[in-house]
Amino acid sequence: MSGKRVVLVTGHRALGELTALSQQAELHSLDTISEAAQESLLPSVDCLLVAGLWPESLGKEKISRMKNLKFIQLRLAGANHVPIRYIPPGVVICTNAGGFSLGVAEYAWGLLLAAAKRVVVFDANLKAGQFTREFRTKVGNEIMLLRGKTLGIIGYGGIGRAVAAMGRGFGMKVNAFSRHPEAEPDIAVFQGREGLLDVLRTSDAVVISIPLTNRTLGLIGDAELSVMKPGAILVNIAREEIVDEPALFKHLKANPAFTYATDVWRLTDGAESFTASVPFLELENFIGTPHVSGPSESSTGDPMRLAVENLLRYLKGEEPRNVVDRSEYT
Amino acid sequence: MSGKRVVLVTGHRALGELTALSQQAELHSLDTISEAAQESLLPSVDCLLVAGLWPESLGKEKISRMKNLKFIQLRLAGANHVPIRYIPPGVVICTNAGGFSLGVAEYAWGLLLAAAKRVVVFDANLKAGQFTREFRTKVGNEIMLLRGKTLGIIGYGGIGRAVAAMGRGFGMKVNAFSRHPEAEPDIAVFQGREGLLDVLRTSDAVVISIPLTNRTLGLIGDAELSVMKPGAILVNIAREEIVDEPALFKHLKANPAFTYATDVWRLTDGAESFTASVPFLELENFIGTPHVSGPSESSTGDPMRLAVENLLRYLKGEEPRNVVDRSEYT
Repeated sequence: MSGKRVVLVTGHRALGELTALSQQAELHSLDTISEAAQESLLPSVDCLLVAGLWPESLGKEKISRMKNLKFIQLRLAGANHVPIRYIPPGVVICTNAGGFSLGVAEYAWGLLLAAAKRVVVFDANLKAGQFTREFRTKVGNEIMLLRGKTLGIIGYGGIGRAVAAMGRGFGMKVNAFSRHPEAEPDIAVFQGREGLLDVLRTSDAVVISIPLTNRTLGLIGDAELSVMKPGAILVNIAREEIVDEPALFKHLKANPAFTYATDVWRLTDGAESFTASVPFLELENFIGTPHVSGPSESSTGDPMRLAVENLLRYLKGEEPRNVVDRSEYT
Repeated sequence: MSGKRVVLVTGHRALGELTALSQQAELHSLDTISEAAQESLLPSVDCLLVAGLWPESLGKEKISRMKNLKFIQLRLAGANHVPIRYIPPGVVICTNAGGFSLGVAEYAWGLLLAAAKRVVVFDANLKAGQFTREFRTKVGNEIMLLRGKTLGIIGYGGIGRAVAAMGRGFGMKVNAFSRHPEAEPDIAVFQGREGLLDVLRTSDAVVISIPLTNRTLGLIGDAELSVMKPGAILVNIAREEIVDEPALFKHLKANPAFTYATDVWRLTDGAESFTASVPFLELENFIGTPHVSGPSESSTGDPMRLAVENLLRYLKGEEPRNVVDRSEYT
């Protein structure tokens, strides 16, 4: 073994791609080494680089054998998949918040416009051979002109800011719900419980771009939906558990002009399920895509590069970014 | 009869809404008066205000009875539906070019993003219960990140300019094909046959926003499609006859990563058919919507207001805008 610190990579076998990192550390891939080899490796691991969801094979017992572990860098933007309760308090965990902002923010606009312009419902209708002028008029009347309308952004971090910036050309007023009051001069920032309700009440379209933590689990439920405009659009490119699915299903049934468009699905047994707990897929005012907002052309590029950069910050003794506040996840 | 000039309105019965116009002219609705009443009215008509497609009931014979006709104002942006050969050369015809720019440009972005982000194909797949991780990966790989890509705009008039302005936030380079070389400093303008091919060759997404005239009929055919990128997106919010449907169908079959998204359908017997001459609707890489890009919330507002403003310009002796060059339609 070299004198370099030991980084164990999970969910990314192509270690040869990680040039910048391999110059600074000794790299191993959890996915390509035997259980026997893990036996001797785990106690020497200084850092974990988790490229996908937390691997199922890395449970409580194996974590406890990583006596030397000091730092965990995630490639994903959120930490909700990490078994924090098994990770000793001294280990620093960093998310890759912002690493996917560009692709995810563009995807949010894809879902928002598909909903506002009724593209999905019209296309499905034409392809099913069910074109009628009555249907065209009915749904056409629900088409939303964005100019002059209000866009609510729940969570004004990297993704939320990118969503707002992309939308400037559409001439929407932007209301952001955020813990941090700093924002561009043309963005109104709302805080606290009343602030959340104000954003929901005034918005014609709402994008959820807030991390899933114990403070945001079920954030959008019955009471929150009830203040929204009946023809509003709700876009979720964050985590499905932020919405209360049964409440949302009831709301969609009662308000056919309201649309929910989501790219995210609840976790079941540690993996994204691509199913909902309610029959969303039966509804015309539901649009679903299978978590593709961090598009593949960027998912092997930018996010990994940014995750590695943050890990290098730690290895060089600099202050890493996006350190997880454990109290938000336990 | 008053001394006011006589304006005959077609396709819009609610004359009471046209306050500004009724102060300047004597208004009649073709749709609410009997054939007998038309008999005496037609010779006195000074102006026509055509709110929808040219009415079938207003054929060669009735046009010939409007001996006093001097001015025709259309509420639609194009004149391709007007039977120009029956209209005496001295009659000025004005389109409402630009009247729908805002709604249509937003709709172009709706189609463009639905195609770039594969929203329609993913949603349809999930709703058909055919979710597989293989499909997700395959189609996910085709998701286009817009930032840094090139947007081609065929026809840089009111709609084309609005499309470019809305897209600034997405960070695309814009290449416009236009007869007029004037454009914002960050827009590259291309002209002539070679210019058209250059725009098509370099663009990742192309929006067709050019009027249908005898110069643009079948503008996008075999030769033009063959220079486009295999994974490009072609959006049509102008008129369907600008594309050669059989050539485009063949191109879509041969290039599954290429997408055609259209809101417009060819005219058949003077009415929009909402069908194609080829089985577009069978294709996963085709997206169709039933000409709803001038959304209803604006179609009774802005476009009519702008059409009336132009008609008032004529009535007041001012220079009207958007005068049709008949040589482009005959």
